[in-house]
Amino acid sequence: MAVYTKVSAEQIAAFLKRFEVGQLVSVKGIAEGVENSNYLLETDQSRFILTLYEKRVDPKDLPFFISLLDHLSAKGCPVPPVIADIAGEQIHELCGKFACLIAFLPGVSVSTPTPGQAASAGRALGGMHLAARDFAGTRQNNMDRTEWDKLAASCGADELNAISEGLNDLVQTELRALEKEWPMHLPHAVIHADLFPDNALMLGDEVTGIIDFYFSCTDIRAYDLAVTHTAWCFSDDGETFDQHISDALITGYKDSFGLSGAEREALPILARGAALRFLLTRAYDWINTPADALVTRKDPLAFLNRLKFYQQHRNIFTA
Amino acid sequence: MAVYTKVSAEQIAAFLKRFEVGQLVSVKGIAEGVENSNYLLETDQSRFILTLYEKRVDPKDLPFFISLLDHLSAKGCPVPPVIADIAGEQIHELCGKFACLIAFLPGVSVSTPTPGQAASAGRALGGMHLAARDFAGTRQNNMDRTEWDKLAASCGADELNAISEGLNDLVQTELRALEKEWPMHLPHAVIHADLFPDNALMLGDEVTGIIDFYFSCTDIRAYDLAVTHTAWCFSDDGETFDQHISDALITGYKDSFGLSGAEREALPILARGAALRFLLTRAYDWINTPADALVTRKDPLAFLNRLKFYQQHRNIFTA
Repeated sequence: MAVYTKVSAEQIAAFLKRFEVGQLVSVKGIAEGVENSNYLLETDQSRFILTLYEKRVDPKDLPFFISLLDHLSAKGCPVPPVIADIAGEQIHELCGKFACLIAFLPGVSVSTPTPGQAASAGRALGGMHLAARDFAGTRQNNMDRTEWDKLAASCGADELNAISEGLNDLVQTELRALEKEWPMHLPHAVIHADLFPDNALMLGDEVTGIIDFYFSCTDIRAYDLAVTHTAWCFSDDGETFDQHISDALITGYKDSFGLSGAEREALPILARGAALRFLLTRAYDWINTPADALVTRKDPLAFLNRLKFYQQHRNIFTA
Repeated sequence: MAVYTKVSAEQIAAFLKRFEVGQLVSVKGIAEGVENSNYLLETDQSRFILTLYEKRVDPKDLPFFISLLDHLSAKGCPVPPVIADIAGEQIHELCGKFACLIAFLPGVSVSTPTPGQAASAGRALGGMHLAARDFAGTRQNNMDRTEWDKLAASCGADELNAISEGLNDLVQTELRALEKEWPMHLPHAVIHADLFPDNALMLGDEVTGIIDFYFSCTDIRAYDLAVTHTAWCFSDDGETFDQHISDALITGYKDSFGLSGAEREALPILARGAALRFLLTRAYDWINTPADALVTRKDPLAFLNRLKFYQQHRNIFTA
C-alpha cells in the first residue's frame, strides 16, 4: 500500500515510448493494491496504471494473470486489460522490476457496501465465472487448503497464542475439521480468490471494475463466493454480520451464474475456510511485520471473529 | 509521502456534496508532498487534489496559504486555486483533520532537470514574485536564519557528529558566519521557500504548476532564488554541480523579475544559508525518524556537500 520503487517522470516518459499511448501529461504514485508499486499515469490520449511487481508476485505467474485479464476483458467483464507495446509485449522491465501498463478503470472502492452494491458484486463475480468458463489457463492456488497447515506452523503456536489466548488450539481444531469436510468434489474453475470491496470499483450500485487479480488461481469455484462473502458481509472488525448484504450477494451471484444445491450446502464450510485463510495470512503478516513498518498491519482478529461466526451460524446462506 | 489519514470513498462523496463540482468518479490516495494526506479525485466535471493537513502544517497558517494561492492564480500564475464550497468556505474539516479541495494541475515533476527546464523554473519563480508584489498577506518564516541556531541545538552536537565527523563544528562556524553576513538589508517579499523540482509540474520545458506552498512566508526575496538554486543545480547527492543549470535558472529569473546588483552579490551567502537550512532540517529528521518509519529519510549529507561547494565556489552566480 505504498510506492516501493521510485520511478522518475523521465523514466516513465521513456518507457511510454515503447507504446502507442501518447505523451505523458501527469504521474502520481498511488497507495493501492497488494505489495506492488503503482503509478497513475495520464497521457494526452488516456489514463493507465503502471504496476511494478514487488516481492509478493512471482514473475512466472504474470503470463497467467495477463492472459486471464485479456480473456475476461474481451468477453466484456469490467477488468482492466494489459496494454501491449508496439512489439506486442505486455511484460516489461523497469527499474529492475517486472512491470505492466494496465488500462485505468473509473469507479471507487466502497468501505461500507450497501445491499445494492453487494448484489452488483455478486453479479460481477458470477459474470466473471461465466466468462472464465472457456479460459484454458490454470494456476495452482498457493494459498489453498493444503497450505494452511504449513502457514499455521510457520506462524508458530506461541505467536498465535500471543495474538489471542487459545488461538493455536482453535486453528488446529479448525484445520482438522476442514481437512475432513473440505468439498473437493465441487466444480473447480479459475477464481479471483481475493474479491474484497477494495478490489471492486463502483459507480453508484454498478461494478465498473474488478481489479487486483494477483491471487487468481484454479480452485473450488464456490470458494470464490465464500471469500467474497467473508470480505463483504461483516463490519471491518468482523464483529457485525449483515444478513441483508449476505442475501444480496448470494442472490446476485445466483442470478448471474447459478449455484448448485451441492455448492450451497458447502457454503458454511467454504466460508469457514475463507475466514481461516485470511486469519492465517494476517496472523503471519502480523507476526512478521514490525509495528512501525511501511505496510499497515491488518488485524487478524477481524477474521477470527468471522470464523467464530461461521462456526456458530451455519444457516445464514439462505438467499 | 504517504496517506496518513484514511478517508473512505463514501466520506469523500459526502464531502463533495458541499461543493458544486459534480459526482465522484474515482479516488486514489497519492504519495506526494510534505507530510499531508493527499487524494487525487475525479468527478464527472473535473479533477482535484483533496489535502488533509497532518502535523507539519499549522492550521492557523491555512488562510495565508489559501489567499496567496488565490491571489497568484487570479494573476495567471500556474498555481492551483483552492475550491470554495457552496457557502464560500475553503477550509473544511474531514476525519478530524483540516482539509482543502484544490484544483488539479497537469504536468510531471522532473528528477534531472535540463537547462531549458531550469530556465523555465527561474521564469516561473520570477513570475510568482511579480504577481506577489501587491499581495497584502505576511507570514513569518519559521525556518528563517534566526531559527537555525535553535535547530542545530535541538539536533545535538553528538548526534550531528554521528552523521558526519566534525559536522557540529562546521555547522557552528557557518552559523556565526551567516549571522555576521546575512543580507537583511535586501528587499523582503512573500516567497515560496521550497521550490524543489518536486514542487514544479512541467510539460516539456514549460512549468505548468508550482505546488506545495506550505513553507511560503515573508523573507528576503533573493533567498527564494538561492533555495531554488540549491534544489535544482546539483545531483541528488549534492556531489555534482551543473553550471549550465545554474546559469539557465538565474537567467530565467532575471529575465522575468530582474535581479539587482546587491541581490546578485548576496547570492553566495544566501545559497550557503539555503544549503544549511536543508542540511539542518534533514539532520533533525534523520536523528528523530526511526530508520524503518513510514517516511523516507532524506540524507542530510546531500546538503552538506552543497554547503561545502558554495563555501568554496563564490563566483558561480555569473549568469
